[in-house]
Amino acid sequence: MSGLLVRDCAQIVTPDGAGKVLVHEDAAILCEDGRIAAVGEPGRFAGHKGETISIHGGVATPGLVDSHTHLIFGGNRANELELRAQGATYQDVAAAGGGIKSTVASTRGLTLDHMVQIGRTRVRVAMAMGTTTMEAKSGYGLDLETEARTLQAYRALSAEGPVEIRATYLGLHAVPEGIGKAEYVAEACDRILPELANRGLVDAVDAFVEVGYFDEADAKRLATAAEQYRLALHLHVDQFHDAGGAALARVLGATSADHLEHTGAAGIEAMAESEVVPVLVPGSVVGLGLHRFPDAHAMLRAGLPVALATDFNPGSSPTLSLPLVMALACRYMSMTPAEALCATTANAARALRLGDRGSLKPGMRADLALWSASDYREIATYFGINLCSGTVIEGTPYLASQ
Amino acid sequence: MSGLLVRDCAQIVTPDGAGKVLVHEDAAILCEDGRIAAVGEPGRFAGHKGETISIHGGVATPGLVDSHTHLIFGGNRANELELRAQGATYQDVAAAGGGIKSTVASTRGLTLDHMVQIGRTRVRVAMAMGTTTMEAKSGYGLDLETEARTLQAYRALSAEGPVEIRATYLGLHAVPEGIGKAEYVAEACDRILPELANRGLVDAVDAFVEVGYFDEADAKRLATAAEQYRLALHLHVDQFHDAGGAALARVLGATSADHLEHTGAAGIEAMAESEVVPVLVPGSVVGLGLHRFPDAHAMLRAGLPVALATDFNPGSSPTLSLPLVMALACRYMSMTPAEALCATTANAARALRLGDRGSLKPGMRADLALWSASDYREIATYFGINLCSGTVIEGTPYLASQ
Repeated sequence: MSGLLVRDCAQIVTPDGAGKVLVHEDAAILCEDGRIAAVGEPGRFAGHKGETISIHGGVATPGLVDSHTHLIFGGNRANELELRAQGATYQDVAAAGGGIKSTVASTRGLTLDHMVQIGRTRVRVAMAMGTTTMEAKSGYGLDLETEARTLQAYRALSAEGPVEIRATYLGLHAVPEGIGKAEYVAEACDRILPELANRGLVDAVDAFVEVGYFDEADAKRLATAAEQYRLALHLHVDQFHDAGGAALARVLGATSADHLEHTGAAGIEAMAESEVVPVLVPGSVVGLGLHRFPDAHAMLRAGLPVALATDFNPGSSPTLSLPLVMALACRYMSMTPAEALCATTANAARALRLGDRGSLKPGMRADLALWSASDYREIATYFGINLCSGTVIEGTPYLASQ
Repeated sequence: MSGLLVRDCAQIVTPDGAGKVLVHEDAAILCEDGRIAAVGEPGRFAGHKGETISIHGGVATPGLVDSHTHLIFGGNRANELELRAQGATYQDVAAAGGGIKSTVASTRGLTLDHMVQIGRTRVRVAMAMGTTTMEAKSGYGLDLETEARTLQAYRALSAEGPVEIRATYLGLHAVPEGIGKAEYVAEACDRILPELANRGLVDAVDAFVEVGYFDEADAKRLATAAEQYRLALHLHVDQFHDAGGAALARVLGATSADHLEHTGAAGIEAMAESEVVPVLVPGSVVGLGLHRFPDAHAMLRAGLPVALATDFNPGSSPTLSLPLVMALACRYMSMTPAEALCATTANAARALRLGDRGSLKPGMRADLALWSASDYREIATYFGINLCSGTVIEGTPYLASQ
């Protein structure tokens, strides 16, 4: 036997494909040619001759998949906490020229090199907390040049590895200064998107469907344009109001419907009759100091493959920690640690149409997160403490320095 | 000039003694003999001959002081999230034999060595996030032997340094099995406390005043016993109900009143007429998935020196991250980043009666937290991401490995 053997695992935990997890106690896992070869009791691998790492009684899970981030942006919005302490809402801050628009101004000033450098630092931070695959959105350029540069940076980071990045053109994030909404939507769908797609820079598109941002007709136009290039569709919906966004996601054949804080029974039913993956981002609820979390419990009861993501961004969710998001989901969304793990592995991979990862079945990509814990449920129990001791990506180990 | 010079600081930020912060832009800070010697523009220190570290355009603040932790305990309570996902409350879990009692069983089985080892790992985790002084409570022994062992472990860890630990006997945490409450209170106040105090193991005492735990009369008896040994008094009050705990803290001359989630106007007024420091622990609100946070805004308006702490413990607040606590306070308690910084430095030191730290005035202990940020407000903006790049404790630098 060759390849990488990960041994001394108190638990190896994997989604079972039916929304639950399978726990192998006192086990080892063999990776060969970048794929999972076998999980089993240590004795089975006694003859292993290749590279071996011990995780000293820790836990191994599939590498975490962050299916919703706004990874690269310029500046920070550290001034906004003061405004909010005085009672300003997210919408008030945006109306006063803060919010997305202030980040657009900072992001347009970044060179490609600077973008790659910023992105690289953030990918490393996420990877140190167990993330092995990320989705990353543009949307802080809102012009062809900056959107293209942001997406090029994602392609460059993904090529440099080891974390694979799926790039999403979030064309409809906000309407930039100096142009009407209708004109901008036409520009984004008919000129920018085709150019980005022809240059091979995008895997998916996205729109922020919300009062004051974009509406159903805009999203439909984007979806139609995306279809021509066979790009996946993600949608930001129902964040601040139940505006029928979940049902819209179904009608437009979206791969994922993200946010869903205000989605009610009708929206959940619509998703349950479709292939839409609900991607929930409780970090953005906490980031905004709000109290209404998405109804994960109802979605799980309806049989939906609930995913959890960070929604990393400078305004509403400045966190790259999927373990923290799992901890919040277990506290405020009645999810169990098992459901939270499925939501950041198998279901998150599904939200990105990545069928080759998210579980530890033989043949899957050998992407692991390794944890200094004796029970996988500790990952969601502690918060603000990094229990991740390393990752394995395509069979190569990346261990945290001791 | 000798000593340690910390240079290339985009900001050096310190409480100004009046509840605000003073920001020195593009500055350096000189430490001599373990004390702050001077803060000023870099040119002032051009002749410095001693050790110099650059923080590369980062931020320096006073080292953070965590004024409320339950640092050492055995086991973990990873099973409780599943119970809570099914709707069980903190009180339900405790009534079913989980909660504090299950941790007592695990803690009693620990040797002193094991306790020190567990504590050391946790202190390092906290220090890596900017903590340079901690308070640590016993209270998972509930018998003389285990309480003494826990407090000995705190003394050993504090002696080994570099983080100084203030040890609190939390005698009245829960009533152990096999004894009535009245008998246990007498045992704790009249036998255990004198023994611990005579052995020099404690700096303060504490009681959990709450329906189903201990009442005003119990707290008073503990306070009376503590007074004989000139120990400070901390009190857990008003966590689940406004039971007049803040006013009790005033009457008993407590150094701090901790929790205060349900304290109303009368309690705030009582504290404002006293020297009691309110220690707020929003991590325990989030840890329990609750929505009611303490009214920091009203306390600040009343002129109170609000402190923030982690309340690190295995059940309600499994976090050691003061930056995360600051982030929560800015979101859910209308605190500004400046107020949150005062709350984890100057005011937290005051909650521990430590007059020699918590600001960067010349003559104070040279305890710093160093941050990879260009603006101190980023510390509370990001969450679940560790921006701390190192600490200085009594003039000695401890930098994170790159």
